[in-house]
Amino acid sequence: MSSPILQHLYPEEFSHCFGCGRLNKEGTQLQSHYLADKNLTLAKVIPDTKYTGGVPNHLYGGIIASLLDCHGAASAAAFKSLEEGKKLDGSEPIARCVTGTLSVRYIKPTPLNVELHITGKLISIENRKITVGLSLTANGEECATGEMLAIQLKD
Amino acid sequence: MSSPILQHLYPEEFSHCFGCGRLNKEGTQLQSHYLADKNLTLAKVIPDTKYTGGVPNHLYGGIIASLLDCHGAASAAAFKSLEEGKKLDGSEPIARCVTGTLSVRYIKPTPLNVELHITGKLISIENRKITVGLSLTANGEECATGEMLAIQLKD
Repeated sequence: MSSPILQHLYPEEFSHCFGCGRLNKEGTQLQSHYLADKNLTLAKVIPDTKYTGGVPNHLYGGIIASLLDCHGAASAAAFKSLEEGKKLDGSEPIARCVTGTLSVRYIKPTPLNVELHITGKLISIENRKITVGLSLTANGEECATGEMLAIQLKD
Repeated sequence: MSSPILQHLYPEEFSHCFGCGRLNKEGTQLQSHYLADKNLTLAKVIPDTKYTGGVPNHLYGGIIASLLDCHGAASAAAFKSLEEGKKLDGSEPIARCVTGTLSVRYIKPTPLNVELHITGKLISIENRKITVGLSLTANGEECATGEMLAIQLKD
């Protein structure tokens, strides 16, 4: 069971993000889903080949951080919404979260021209502070991990 | 006393980065300098207005991480080169570093259409591990800080 695209559940005024906003026509429009059976979030993406790192056939580390940033914020919103008893089916507003801190560990070079899988799992929720663990894999190999502390915005 | 553009001292094969590579024509070509009198590094940049965060008039957090990634790696290369007794005047190769870990703390929203100043200072060097402290300011206000552990590549 997969949710709708989490970023499509953001209010319109928060949908302009270059990385994942549905209203940013020049952006990369990352799409994240919540998988109920696994209790984790997943995004799949093949970044544009212009996003090279220093070496041409590797992905730019800044884009890796960007992917983890967008997916982490969507994951935090999903986990917090579920904790509040909300559904993620578009029938009610999703919690809105911003990044407080993001840490990224680069494990090995990430290849280009490969579908990347980014997962998010809940580590903890303390009131409006949501901590999410993140992982980025390519061809089944973990290339980077991350941890985000997200802050839920007040209504 | 300001060094040449640090990224222009990278070997050609490492100059394809989307964020700062001089050979990536589609990239953002961040330019960092070492300031000898202050013993710190500095980059100044006005990001393109397409890089909006969720809210249109704020900068995307992924781009903030990207700027800190490129500037941090250049800073680590500069500090390690100086420790090895090298000059940063282009007369000899600069050390080449990659990101091991990067952590970013988002303090307040970063405005668009403002020249951002990103500084790097050396925290420590242990053999091939260089730790750099990073700060991003807009209009004199600190909007984000970061810390990078960079790894010097072997020749």
